[in-house]
Amino acid sequence: MTEMMNELTKERVVRFFEEKDLVRLRAAVVAYKPEDVGELFYELPPKYRIALFRLLPKEFAAECFVALDTQTRRELIESFTERELRSVTDELFLDDTVDIIEEMPANVVKKILRSASKEDRAVINQLLGYPKDSAGSLMTPEYVRLFPGMSVFEALEHIRRVALDSETVYTCYVTDSGRRLIGIVTAKQLLISAPDVLISDIMNTSPIFVETSLDRQSVVNLIRKYGFLALPVVDNEKRLVGIVTVDDAVDAMSEEAEEDFAKMAAITPSDEEYLKVPVSRIFLSRIPWLLLLLISSALSSLMLARFESALPAVLVLFVPMLMGTGGNCGSQSSVTVIRSLSLGTLPPRSAPRVIFKELSVGALCGLALAVAALLKVVVVDRFIAGNPDVSLVVAICVSLSLALTVVIAKVIGAALPLAVKCIGLDPAVMASPFITTIVDAMSLVIYFLIARAVLL
Amino acid sequence: MTEMMNELTKERVVRFFEEKDLVRLRAAVVAYKPEDVGELFYELPPKYRIALFRLLPKEFAAECFVALDTQTRRELIESFTERELRSVTDELFLDDTVDIIEEMPANVVKKILRSASKEDRAVINQLLGYPKDSAGSLMTPEYVRLFPGMSVFEALEHIRRVALDSETVYTCYVTDSGRRLIGIVTAKQLLISAPDVLISDIMNTSPIFVETSLDRQSVVNLIRKYGFLALPVVDNEKRLVGIVTVDDAVDAMSEEAEEDFAKMAAITPSDEEYLKVPVSRIFLSRIPWLLLLLISSALSSLMLARFESALPAVLVLFVPMLMGTGGNCGSQSSVTVIRSLSLGTLPPRSAPRVIFKELSVGALCGLALAVAALLKVVVVDRFIAGNPDVSLVVAICVSLSLALTVVIAKVIGAALPLAVKCIGLDPAVMASPFITTIVDAMSLVIYFLIARAVLL
Repeated sequence: MTEMMNELTKERVVRFFEEKDLVRLRAAVVAYKPEDVGELFYELPPKYRIALFRLLPKEFAAECFVALDTQTRRELIESFTERELRSVTDELFLDDTVDIIEEMPANVVKKILRSASKEDRAVINQLLGYPKDSAGSLMTPEYVRLFPGMSVFEALEHIRRVALDSETVYTCYVTDSGRRLIGIVTAKQLLISAPDVLISDIMNTSPIFVETSLDRQSVVNLIRKYGFLALPVVDNEKRLVGIVTVDDAVDAMSEEAEEDFAKMAAITPSDEEYLKVPVSRIFLSRIPWLLLLLISSALSSLMLARFESALPAVLVLFVPMLMGTGGNCGSQSSVTVIRSLSLGTLPPRSAPRVIFKELSVGALCGLALAVAALLKVVVVDRFIAGNPDVSLVVAICVSLSLALTVVIAKVIGAALPLAVKCIGLDPAVMASPFITTIVDAMSLVIYFLIARAVLL
Repeated sequence: MTEMMNELTKERVVRFFEEKDLVRLRAAVVAYKPEDVGELFYELPPKYRIALFRLLPKEFAAECFVALDTQTRRELIESFTERELRSVTDELFLDDTVDIIEEMPANVVKKILRSASKEDRAVINQLLGYPKDSAGSLMTPEYVRLFPGMSVFEALEHIRRVALDSETVYTCYVTDSGRRLIGIVTAKQLLISAPDVLISDIMNTSPIFVETSLDRQSVVNLIRKYGFLALPVVDNEKRLVGIVTVDDAVDAMSEEAEEDFAKMAAITPSDEEYLKVPVSRIFLSRIPWLLLLLISSALSSLMLARFESALPAVLVLFVPMLMGTGGNCGSQSSVTVIRSLSLGTLPPRSAPRVIFKELSVGALCGLALAVAALLKVVVVDRFIAGNPDVSLVVAICVSLSLALTVVIAKVIGAALPLAVKCIGLDPAVMASPFITTIVDAMSLVIYFLIARAVLL
């Protein structure tokens, strides 16, 4: 039998993959015993291992995995963490066979994750089908599980036994026999309660929990909001599959913020320390965005070329002020909106209020800046610099254009991240550099139209 | 006696303050009993209360405070939290009488902080002399303190008794009789140890601790790095005065990041939620920076005016591209350096390495962007837009200026935050908007000089 399986491995399984005939592959494999298929995993080229694993019915896959000895299991898991394998899973999901891949049951998830180091967990959770940057990809299965019928004494005894295997013993999770989460007890409560009290009498029966698919930022926001040491994660059948501990949440929170910082500065995010990254990789993380922004600035050049041929040359002097101020106003709004969205303090339905607010702030800023610009142009450029071409009419043109640019920049700066969020993308892509590039071109159009109307 | 004290209050104490004769005030007050002085606190105008408190010898001040009844103590503390009182403390410290103000002893700090709500703690800690945003201003005194001679059984009994008064019971601090920190024991260790084991046998005798004056960001970085639930804080005599818990560290971490985000967008930081802040306050948090940046852009206008009169008009077309790219390059470097400094991954002594690294990245980016710009100018502006003034010489001028601007922008973007950090200020003030304004003017100078050399 084993011989036959080996034959199958080298010929048929790989051929099934190459032909993308995953449905027949699945049928062929499940005809064997899980113990034999377990060995087959190890014989397969690494890139097909995880694909096959995810393809099998969940209970069958679990049995295959559990049938392996610890060493093989570890090696299999280590092979899962290789970066190139991620794409295999992505491919499976993009394939129309996605519906044959079922969600892993809670006990399988727990068994698999237990063998993994903290570093491998994120990758493995992702491979198990949890989306990147979700609660599922952040959780650990090393929690203390109690039953409602236990006494405090029994619970403390249980904690003593499992403490070394648990990431935290300070929050314990009470489940029913179906592993469904029904309550939470803290170690503090256990310590101050009499030994014969039942867990069901002291547990908090309305625990806050999240589903595996919830995005990482929301998980972090919940932990921060309530000051939790850990947050339970349940699958779509409300069974407890893991917990997110505060130290992992802190790391995730930091990563999320640094990603936003990078995006706001038009850098591809990386979680490596600056001093340790070679020059070539720093270059690669920056140059694509610089090139993109360089190309987009062509819009402004073309606008300026039309402008120049049609209007007095003196107007060009104020282009940097106009563009700079427009860009700064847009950045202020976009950063405010992006961070509020990230921190969860801005529900997407509040978009109309935000736009109205930015319109009001923009009107006030526009007015103040227009007055300042008028004074600056008249005093500095006309009188101090003594430029005779800077007439009062020019100053008014600049001032009016600035006011309008500011209002529009504020609204665009707030609206674009909100719009991007609504279609389900990361609002931080609409950060300062892109807002600035858009506002730059737009401010030139406004300036051009106003100058043409007033001066010609 | 009490009558006499009241006489003193209304006349002499206020006069001493008005005359800034703090040394004599102190001598006069300590001649009385702490119990009477305690009452005097309540009679004094609020602005002198905290000043007097900080002025007294530490043990004396402690006794005054402790002598007050709970209600008066609360009211006194509440009066301490009024914003205008901060300036009084600042004044005291700026005064040359600062050397008579001694550091509060650990037990006083503990007694005072215990009466305060979590919200008031930061303000009170500050008033006690801990710098804003320091470990001292972040800590809580509600920790569990154990002695090395206790057994595990006694320690657990102790925890049961004090659990409700403690912010966390999960990390316990072992001190000697002089309140000096000598070890740490986790609740997990207590739970898994036999009841008769001594604390001195299981405690970690080289705990990581911080001093009250350490800055908040470093405290947060330590907690994140080690995944601590709490970090002990000691005074300058190594006596335990409080702990910083992970939930407060998470809040501080978030505040620090949001402050940097705000500064990077040229907004005065605020820890309030966007939707709850009225338009007028949003306006006020944004307009000073916009005005400042508007004024600084005058530099670019003046530069451009000189430029325009001396050189072919066609060169102006590429000013937005040059300024935009320079600004983006500077932002990339400054955001990278500012965040690395904040996260503690960039020791200030590494400044030369950073500058050299940015110089290298700048050279690579400058080269790539110069080639792209050359192509773009020739293809888009000369051939597609059909502008006959865009000669190859013009394209080379633009390209050369861009390369040089990029290199200098990268170096300035990295060097300015490092320089600001070296003189002890917050590097985030050197964030994108200011870097951009500086780079804007500089890129015009470079463009001007290169164009003059090549074209004239």
